[in-house]
Order: sequence, then C-alpha cells, then structure tokens
Amino acid sequence: MAVYTEVDPDDLAALVARYDIGTVLSCKGIAEGVENSNFLLETTGGRFILTLYEKRVQAGDLPFFVDLLGHLANQGCPVPAMIRDRGGDAIQQISGRAACIIQFLSGISLTHPTPTQCEAAGRALGAMHRAVAGFSGTRANSMGHRHWRGVATATGDLDAVIPGLQATVDAELAWLDANWPSGLPTHVIHADLFPDNVLVLGDRVTGLIDFYFAATDYRAYDVAVTHASWTFSADGTRCDLDRALALMRGYADEIALSDEEVAALPLLARGASLRFLLTRAHDWVHTPADALVTRKDPSPFLNRLRRYQADDALSLFSAA
Amino acid sequence: MAVYTEVDPDDLAALVARYDIGTVLSCKGIAEGVENSNFLLETTGGRFILTLYEKRVQAGDLPFFVDLLGHLANQGCPVPAMIRDRGGDAIQQISGRAACIIQFLSGISLTHPTPTQCEAAGRALGAMHRAVAGFSGTRANSMGHRHWRGVATATGDLDAVIPGLQATVDAELAWLDANWPSGLPTHVIHADLFPDNVLVLGDRVTGLIDFYFAATDYRAYDVAVTHASWTFSADGTRCDLDRALALMRGYADEIALSDEEVAALPLLARGASLRFLLTRAHDWVHTPADALVTRKDPSPFLNRLRRYQADDALSLFSAA
Repeated sequence: MAVYTEVDPDDLAALVARYDIGTVLSCKGIAEGVENSNFLLETTGGRFILTLYEKRVQAGDLPFFVDLLGHLANQGCPVPAMIRDRGGDAIQQISGRAACIIQFLSGISLTHPTPTQCEAAGRALGAMHRAVAGFSGTRANSMGHRHWRGVATATGDLDAVIPGLQATVDAELAWLDANWPSGLPTHVIHADLFPDNVLVLGDRVTGLIDFYFAATDYRAYDVAVTHASWTFSADGTRCDLDRALALMRGYADEIALSDEEVAALPLLARGASLRFLLTRAHDWVHTPADALVTRKDPSPFLNRLRRYQADDALSLFSAA
Repeated sequence: MAVYTEVDPDDLAALVARYDIGTVLSCKGIAEGVENSNFLLETTGGRFILTLYEKRVQAGDLPFFVDLLGHLANQGCPVPAMIRDRGGDAIQQISGRAACIIQFLSGISLTHPTPTQCEAAGRALGAMHRAVAGFSGTRANSMGHRHWRGVATATGDLDAVIPGLQATVDAELAWLDANWPSGLPTHVIHADLFPDNVLVLGDRVTGLIDFYFAATDYRAYDVAVTHASWTFSADGTRCDLDRALALMRGYADEIALSDEEVAALPLLARGASLRFLLTRAHDWVHTPADALVTRKDPSPFLNRLRRYQADDALSLFSAA
C-alpha cells in the first residue's frame, strides 16, 4: 500500500513514446500491491497500470511473468497482460527500476464475498488452471513447503508473536514433512489468490491480478490457498460451508480433481495456513508498527490451521 | 501519500447509487493529498475522485470548500468541483468519514517546470483570482502570518532541526511583525499552489487542485507562495530568473498588482518561505522517520528566506 518510487514526467513521456498508446493524460500513484510502485496511467490511447518493480520481484523473473500473463490473456483469462512497445519489449527501465506498462482491468476487490462470488472465483481459478496447461515456463516456488522451516527460523522467537506458537509450528512442520504427498498434478499456479487479488463486478470475475508469487507447484495447493482465503470468518475461526462448497463447485465446473488430490486437500490447506501464518509472523516481527506497509495479524491463519487439522476437515471441501 | 481509510464495496455501491453517475467499475486508492484518503473511482458514467476527509480537514469547513470550488468551476476555472447527488448534497458519509465525490481532471504534476509552464501557472493563478472576486465565502487563514509564532513554539527546539534556526526565526518573526503591510487587496486565495497542486498537459494548465488550505488573505501573498514554490532550485539556494519573471508575466496577463502589492512581494515571499520552513520543521520533529507520510526537508525554505532577504529581492519579481 504505497508508492516507493516517483516518476519524472519527462521520463514518463519518453517511456510512453516507445508504445503505440498515445500521449500521457494523467498518472497517479495507486495504493495497490505490497512490494511494487504502481501508477494508474491514462493516455490518449486508454488506461494502463505502470508498475515499477521494487526489491521483492527479481528482475530476472520478469520475463517469466510477461510470458505467463501473455499466455493466459491469449487463452481468454482476465489477467493483466504486459503491453509490448513497438520494438516488442515489455520490460522497460524508469527511475532506476525495471518497469512494465500493463493492461488495466475494471472491477473491485471484495471484502465479504457471497457464495455466488466464491463459486465465480473457483470457476475463474479452474479456468486459469486449464489455460496454463499449455504454458511451458516454470518457476521454482520460493514460498513452497520446503521453505517454510526457513521462514520460521528467520522470524526468530515465534512465542513472542503468539504464545505457544513455536511448538505448534515445529509439530506441524514435522507432520507436513512426514505426510506431504508426491506426484500430484503440477503446473504454474497463482499461489496467492486472496480476495484482494480478484477483481469482481457484481457476480462476475473481471480480473485475476498480482501473479508475482506464481510458481510451479501442485494445482491442488492453489485450490487450498484459495479455499483458506475466501471461505473463513475474518478471525479465521469459522469456515463458512456455503462459501466453501460453492468455491469447490465452481472449480469443479472447470477441473475434475483426482481422488488423490481431493484426499490431500485438508493437508494442503494446513500447509497453506502455515505458509501465511509464518510469512505474516515474519513480517510482524520485522516490520516497524508505523511503517509504510500495513502489518497483517498472523493469528487468523493459526485459527485456520487448527480448523483444517480437525478430523472432519475433508467435509469443508466436499458435500459428499 | 497514503490511504488511511478503506471503503467497503457494498458501502461504495450504496454511495454511488445516490448520484446520477452510473454504477461502480473500479475504485483504487491513490497516493495523493497529504491528509485525506483519495480513491480514483470509475463508474459507467465517468471517472471521479472519492475523497474521505481525515483529521486535518475540519468537517465544518467542507461547505466552504464545496461552495468555493463550485463557484470557481462555474467561472470556468479548471478546479475539481464536488459532485452533488440527486438530493443536491455534495457532502456524504462513508467508512465513518465525511466524503465527497469530485470531478476528475486530467494532467500531471510537474517536477521541473519550464519558463513557459511557469507563465501558464501564473496566468492560471491570476484567472483564479479574477474568478474568486465574486465569491462571498470567507475562511480565516489558520496558516496565516499571525499563526507562525505558534507553529515555531509548537515545534520545540528549532536548533535541533537546523543549527542556528531559532535565532533566525525569532529575528524574522519580529521583522515581519514590524513590517507586515495592511490594507492590501484581500479575498479567498489558494495559499498552497506548489507544482504538485497544478496539473499540466504540455504547456497547458488543466487543473488547480488541493484547495484545503484556501483561506481569506492578501492575493499578493498567494503570488508570493507560488513564486517561492515554482521558481527555485530544489535546494532553494537559487531563484531562476527566467522562470520567476515568466510566472509574474503570466499573472500580470490577468491581474495588475498595485504598486503597494509589488513593493510588498519580497516581504510576503519572506513570509511564505518562513511559513513552509516552520510547518516542515514542525512535521520533521513530530513525524517518525518511518511513518506513512514522507517528511519534507525544511532547509530549502530557509535558503529561499535568505534569498528573499537580499537587497535585490524585488528584481526576482519584475524586470523593471
């Protein structure tokens, strides 16, 4: 929620002149994205997002994101493709940062999705998984389950965040290591499809955005992340079955998960809960309370973890 | 540079439904304005700014701003008028804040204005002064010269900000008190027309924005504030005569200042420099280094003050 880097108007005019998008009419920094500087750019040719990549997105990863979003957009997915300049380049430099001019998508992010909207989100996720199948790029998941122990260690004293958290995390990491499935269907996944990253108009999904955690991993893990982020009360204690089953129904309209994948969903959702619990705990410890970025309370993901640990957790994914 | 308050999509839809502006297509928080939360709102009827007023703007002042901007817009000035809903109300409530939906203006803020752009800014200021003449509203200038001593006192140890600053400020305040002119032409002025508050496309001014310091004061003081903020090097040590005289030439196309006003310009510019020196020193002391709002270095306005104290300062305002 910030603009870290400013753009000089003359530099902006020179950048826009490389494209067939007319001339600049307006450029306003927007409070979107956690780690980049984003501007809503209006030209005589339309509206665009100008993103300057700050430290978290590695410049070396940008060609992967350009290719991925181009592929998905070509397949009809509502994703914000990077625009190419007249020379065919999508990756530019401005204000000392790598930068892209990106397609603008209408829609707003939901804070209280209805079951119908959850179903639409599930369907959009499934359609994205179908579309990504023909994409040949790969990217290691630096936030995947093999890395969670490292995040826990880097956080330091977990008990200072939530009393008793260290023992809970240690036990969960050991259990996940012992039980993590192998050989499930794998391709590039979004890996962070929270409601903030889905744009909606009414009950229609108009945008899947912020693919900067996209990486190669189990597609069922993507379903688990989406389930964990769309179907719980704000404090994470209660999973709303109407929303949860609607999300799964929407996904099933596009993708039939295998029996092995369905059986693994509670475990993968425990993993997803642990992933966001740990990264939020890490950021809680390492972000000053009054910094530019809002710290997010980790405890709602501890509550989700507990819910997914329960014996009846499979019922949150299926009416069967 | 921040969004302090979030807006719930359902509340937003209900707010927009009060107006004849269609339905919401997009709403993005923008990093604009120092003390309000601003959103770029797109509806099926057009683009607007949604502003939620935070602590610095008093709710009781809002009708004054609505009337002022409505008057100026009616006179053809490029200012962002507040839109009225079907019941005629411009001031609304959302997320526990007073809020207005405001006309969107194209254009970008300059960081390095050319002489031609300075001339256009001077002309736009003069045209605004002509247009405001028929406006009957008044507002006491809470940042006017009678209040600067109070800002200095509230800042605390000025020497901790810049060594020797306390003595400089004490002497300047005494001199300004002894020499402040009386009876100069007075009406509502912008009082903060820095380049960030002027939108430009090429050499054309397309918007004068952020009127939330607008108050009743000498019109020549408004000229002095604009001169101090448009015509100096970034460090405030050097006034660019080409830009300075262009600004004055543009203003003179619209308004002929009296001899008394011209003679007072160096003094008023010393006052303007002191005003921004003091408020920046105050915010420097009272804003944590890592807070949401960027602190601005006060020293460039100490340098401007010194420049305007020089014997030849009148030459910065006139080629005569």
